[in-house]
Amino acid sequence: MTEAAPLQPPEAIRIVALGGLGAIGRNMTTFEYEGRLLLVDCGVLFPEDEQPGVDLILPDFAYLEDRWDDIDALVLTHGHEDHIGAVPYLLRSRSDIPIYGSRLTLALLEAKLREHRIKADLREVEAGHSAQAGPFEVEFFAVTHSIPDALAVAIRADGQLLVHTGDFKLDQLPLDGRVTDLPGLARLGDEGIDLLLVDSTNAEVPGYLASERDIASVLDRVFAGARGRVIVASFASHIHRVQQVLDAAASHGRRVAFVGRSMVRNMNVARDLGYLDVPGGMLVKSDALPDLPDDEAVLVCTGSQGEPMAVLSRIANRDHAIEIGPGDTIVLASSLIPGNENSVNRVINGLTRQGATVVHQGNAKVHVSGHASAGELLTFYNILRPKNVMPVHGEWRHLWANAALAKQTGVEDENIVIAENGSIIDLAHGAVKVVGKVPVGFIYVDGSSVGDITETELKDRRILGDEGFISVFVAVDVSRKKIVAGPEIHERGFARDDEIFSEIRPELAAAVEEALSQGVDQQQQLQQIVRRTVGRWVSRSHRRRPMIVPVVVEV
Amino acid sequence: MTEAAPLQPPEAIRIVALGGLGAIGRNMTTFEYEGRLLLVDCGVLFPEDEQPGVDLILPDFAYLEDRWDDIDALVLTHGHEDHIGAVPYLLRSRSDIPIYGSRLTLALLEAKLREHRIKADLREVEAGHSAQAGPFEVEFFAVTHSIPDALAVAIRADGQLLVHTGDFKLDQLPLDGRVTDLPGLARLGDEGIDLLLVDSTNAEVPGYLASERDIASVLDRVFAGARGRVIVASFASHIHRVQQVLDAAASHGRRVAFVGRSMVRNMNVARDLGYLDVPGGMLVKSDALPDLPDDEAVLVCTGSQGEPMAVLSRIANRDHAIEIGPGDTIVLASSLIPGNENSVNRVINGLTRQGATVVHQGNAKVHVSGHASAGELLTFYNILRPKNVMPVHGEWRHLWANAALAKQTGVEDENIVIAENGSIIDLAHGAVKVVGKVPVGFIYVDGSSVGDITETELKDRRILGDEGFISVFVAVDVSRKKIVAGPEIHERGFARDDEIFSEIRPELAAAVEEALSQGVDQQQQLQQIVRRTVGRWVSRSHRRRPMIVPVVVEV
Repeated sequence: MTEAAPLQPPEAIRIVALGGLGAIGRNMTTFEYEGRLLLVDCGVLFPEDEQPGVDLILPDFAYLEDRWDDIDALVLTHGHEDHIGAVPYLLRSRSDIPIYGSRLTLALLEAKLREHRIKADLREVEAGHSAQAGPFEVEFFAVTHSIPDALAVAIRADGQLLVHTGDFKLDQLPLDGRVTDLPGLARLGDEGIDLLLVDSTNAEVPGYLASERDIASVLDRVFAGARGRVIVASFASHIHRVQQVLDAAASHGRRVAFVGRSMVRNMNVARDLGYLDVPGGMLVKSDALPDLPDDEAVLVCTGSQGEPMAVLSRIANRDHAIEIGPGDTIVLASSLIPGNENSVNRVINGLTRQGATVVHQGNAKVHVSGHASAGELLTFYNILRPKNVMPVHGEWRHLWANAALAKQTGVEDENIVIAENGSIIDLAHGAVKVVGKVPVGFIYVDGSSVGDITETELKDRRILGDEGFISVFVAVDVSRKKIVAGPEIHERGFARDDEIFSEIRPELAAAVEEALSQGVDQQQQLQQIVRRTVGRWVSRSHRRRPMIVPVVVEV
Repeated sequence: MTEAAPLQPPEAIRIVALGGLGAIGRNMTTFEYEGRLLLVDCGVLFPEDEQPGVDLILPDFAYLEDRWDDIDALVLTHGHEDHIGAVPYLLRSRSDIPIYGSRLTLALLEAKLREHRIKADLREVEAGHSAQAGPFEVEFFAVTHSIPDALAVAIRADGQLLVHTGDFKLDQLPLDGRVTDLPGLARLGDEGIDLLLVDSTNAEVPGYLASERDIASVLDRVFAGARGRVIVASFASHIHRVQQVLDAAASHGRRVAFVGRSMVRNMNVARDLGYLDVPGGMLVKSDALPDLPDDEAVLVCTGSQGEPMAVLSRIANRDHAIEIGPGDTIVLASSLIPGNENSVNRVINGLTRQGATVVHQGNAKVHVSGHASAGELLTFYNILRPKNVMPVHGEWRHLWANAALAKQTGVEDENIVIAENGSIIDLAHGAVKVVGKVPVGFIYVDGSSVGDITETELKDRRILGDEGFISVFVAVDVSRKKIVAGPEIHERGFARDDEIFSEIRPELAAAVEEALSQGVDQQQQLQQIVRRTVGRWVSRSHRRRPMIVPVVVEV
């Protein structure tokens, strides 16, 4: 790990991403000037198959240790989990960090904080306005995304200008009419943007995205053709998508029930704040659904990613009160997040097997992404004309693809920074430079533990999950040089029963007593003998490598 | 499980699929007439995330127990693993089953059998020819697929005609000029096909596939633009794809090394039999690669699915002698098999991070599928005009989609059978009927064991893999009503160290001694007390559910 050169205020603005680079999620970037810190976003990352059993992954706050009082503000660009999900964990270290965000973003955060029983210092801001946080002047710009009320932020300090896009796209006909503020951002371009941090998620996708509005006609066609119930699964935060489902339901004389805790909670928030327009009498409680004729019912639920406990998966597994059959139509009105292919496939197969029609992005235009694709990014670069570019929010492939786009619009190689989490980037006099690296790890949340599970435990889990284990217990009397209990040999996930161990038990007992008779009396050494004897046998007779857990105790 | 009605020969032909329905892989169908059996294909299924640690999944041969001598033949449609991979396991039960297949299919099978040290009764057949196997007359038809020399089979018995497509598509300009024999199959249609079993893999994909030949110009462009090495990953069985890489290499003055055991083995077989045309002096050994200038070198390897031990993954992880960098081009010239998305994504990110250009089906037309898409299936139905249709080779979603296509061409609902593995289907006087079901399980190969691992062990593995385990050992003296050793508490995959158990150890010891003092002396009961005490603690203090493995022994 390279140590950072000591920061020389006020010569530079220092940027360190604690998450969001090299993987999509746990977005969090720190900006430092004159010893003061501004944080942008504080999200979670959802684990993939290499992190079994983990609930959430947080940004590594270690970089902020001993510096909690230097933080002037946390700015949230929008209300998605990968941007706000880690806030409750951040506030455990300092609960009064001023948090800036738009109305909807803060409302969603507040609902989350309430569940964690945390009160925070929330400061509502609006697109077009500015806020001063310590030495940082922060200006907010409307952007379109897959959740309403998203913001890009411009940061001014040290006479330099930085822009962080957050997640954005350039939908020119968004449902709420609130377009990405390209004229405002163009004015920043006129002023001169020293560093542009840009969402890379869709940099590999050529051309331009369809408009969210284009989904309306597809939904209309699906509703028109549906004989039985219509069940729409989407993200609980995708208010515009749900709005379109409500609109389609209204025009086809159907009523709607929201199902699932997060869906009900978010739609209540959205409705109360005026982001969701619900025609009077349209909503029914889910327990009133059975009273509705099938062709008048719509269910809106979560579970579009195949989450095993979500309503949709349970319906697919015939493990839910709602039973479906031929005539029913299920719409997965969402993206398929990479990593969820298997579970979504299982859901589609389970629903199909029961005779339902399944509509998904693979066979109908029921989803458009929330992230600018290549054509939009090119447009964006040409309007903002940044001096330096730092692709953010992406895996390596996305960061490189985004860098290539910037380059195509004329940004020079030396003005593009592809960094990783923890890279220390200094921006001085409009020149950008990677000056070092701070250690940034994965902080795993598992049950009520935060940071207790490390790569060691995950490695053990991967072995256990693939191979199972064999545990051996032996109690010995060292003075009499004999075994007094055991070897007790057990397994889980390795074989059909413990019977197979009758083969090795005598050999194992002999090996231990032989060692005892030779004066071996250390627990470690005896355990090593057990491990080797069992390991050799299992490799020879089964060609497998289960975890072997020997315990030798002295009685 | 419904019992089958007793078969009434010679009134019916009975069809039972032992694999290939509801999942893509382990294709195997049995045809029975007058007590005699004909088998078509005998493949393996590769496990997915729900089957951790499993190497392979076999068709369930239980249906054939006590009937081994009734088998007149095994017919192999082509040489892919999901059609021939389980043959060595089948032959363990009866080694002299006559096996029919095309030249390449049998050559690939023979290489596999040699590794298993099995000699078999192989009988080479050719498209256009017939063979008599017991009461079955089997006729072979050329079909195009992603491996050369693939066959569809027509089966005649009982005055009825059945056609099994195997895997097929309708490439009208295949590299070897051997098109799917539509005129021959049309003649079968004239004769009247009583039952058509049809590959469903791509039934959801609209329209027509591009020709394998269309990839040539894409490869040419990639080679023309490559400054450094070109590394192409593909399937070791995709001889035509490799041929096209050789052709591109030849026209750009590059030489080629095959890397990886299965790639080298198959290409030798293909070359010896004349299926692969290698220009003289083109091949180099992989250890001679470093002597070639980068812009004259091509590497052809496996690993296109992100298999962790394959060459390509190791290059991506910087864990291989071959180091790549900017200027090198990697081509994933293969499909992305569902379930492998994460591992392939990791490979692409690893390669991109090192600066290489990665070409894959997501950004270039470097792959066409080997399975007929919807347009081709419609064409096929219209040419063959089957009386009854049974979609095979697919997950539920594919079987249903294929059924819908058959229906669109005029096949009536009652003439379409969507069956599952083990369904007993009788075809009598041209009428098809599901008459029952035999139990068909998953037979797992794990190390040297076949069938020892069951759903119980897999369930344990899933818990262990997600949560880890806590093992507790206590040695008790029942007569003195006290603990003589322990509680020894250990964990793997649950916590950073065993220290955390100091909290629960006294409580646990007290619970056990309390039980002993109350006269509890049964091992089961004492273990139950340990399990409950630890379980309550872990749920309360950690909100987790690791596996708890208590062992109480009497000393």
